Amino acid sequence: MKRHHYTKQAILDMDQRYRANFINCLSGFKSLNLVGTQNAQGQTNLAPFSSVVHLGAHPALVGMVSRPDSVDRHTIGNILDTGEYSLNHVTQDMAAQAHQCSARYDLDESEFDATGLPLARVDGFIAPCVESAPLTMMVKYREHHRLDINNTLFIIGEIQSVLTDDAVVRDSGYVDLEALGTVTCSGLDSYHTTERIDRYAYAKVGVELKAINDKA
Amino acid sequence: MKRHHYTKQAILDMDQRYRANFINCLSGFKSLNLVGTQNAQGQTNLAPFSSVVHLGAHPALVGMVSRPDSVDRHTIGNILDTGEYSLNHVTQDMAAQAHQCSARYDLDESEFDATGLPLARVDGFIAPCVESAPLTMMVKYREHHRLDINNTLFIIGEIQSVLTDDAVVRDSGYVDLEALGTVTCSGLDSYHTTERIDRYAYAKVGVELKAINDKA
Repeated sequence: MKRHHYTKQAILDMDQRYRANFINCLSGFKSLNLVGTQNAQGQTNLAPFSSVVHLGAHPALVGMVSRPDSVDRHTIGNILDTGEYSLNHVTQDMAAQAHQCSARYDLDESEFDATGLPLARVDGFIAPCVESAPLTMMVKYREHHRLDINNTLFIIGEIQSVLTDDAVVRDSGYVDLEALGTVTCSGLDSYHTTERIDRYAYAKVGVELKAINDKA
Repeated sequence: MKRHHYTKQAILDMDQRYRANFINCLSGFKSLNLVGTQNAQGQTNLAPFSSVVHLGAHPALVGMVSRPDSVDRHTIGNILDTGEYSLNHVTQDMAAQAHQCSARYDLDESEFDATGLPLARVDGFIAPCVESAPLTMMVKYREHHRLDINNTLFIIGEIQSVLTDDAVVRDSGYVDLEALGTVTCSGLDSYHTTERIDRYAYAKVGVELKAINDKA
């Protein structure tokens, strides 16, 4: 394949909207999670985030990125208010509703009501979650970092509870997200299902790589 | 679907290896990038990262997570030494080689040589990149944050140049990663191709969501 070279100057010269689309694609395929929160007055909110990343298994930590000037601000305010949020995976059937949650609803409008995504509660937690999500994490806020370079926030939380179909959890602990129907996204607006290529065993120097096939 | 409730205690009680597999799956599908670096002595290194996230389009910023006690330490050392790295997407044909790059090679062994992934150079940059990658970003290190809660590093870089097939860049600036053959991964060991569900227009309150179909 012939690769075109987009220089720094070419990127700077792009139209703002074009550049936003272009740069948002570069990191690769992204996780998609609906973040469920409520504020101190009990107003619920649901917002799509494509930046949730694994940070550690013990304690079980996840990070996510938020722009302070975006619609995410309701989400971040609620997380700091209550110290809690839920992370909810999205299936193909829910993808359009998940995207619609990115519209700029007023603070007193719930995206649950606006999109029809069903709200559920988990005992012992303030944050609402999505009943139809194939996997939900209930998360407690732990710390955040403000990036000097563009004022973006990196929010860190600890996973407290996980709700999912235990039939897709393999003997090794691997959770088969593809069997759950969890989707991935790219750029600002594209949603994708997946098809497994293979799973590979722990890689060792000088040892030929083997495929894994563990059972549910 | 009936959802099983994995409580915090159930997660704490998991065998360590089982828990690592389980928790690593929860964030959802992940980006997969091979990070190309070299040290001050010119020794090259290539390591798979599944935590690269978009941080902003202007300036064009990406973040990634590194555990200080992992094989990533060569990568992080090299980034801090030279201030540069490349991020390289992975296709189905390269997936096994990309996974093999996670083996604990000695500092004086290059993963390029060990796996046969072809090394390329870009004028004006120290860091090596992968010639067969469908998309490569040349990145300059900008800042990092150490997370108090588990000592993980969050590394932030600014995209300087992008090399990819311009035939997959749509009129809107959207880069069709699926057309490039870029793969996604899940957990610690699973690799997946994708199939597009749809792209959706910018979501507005009270307006029915429309699918997008812009041209290459």
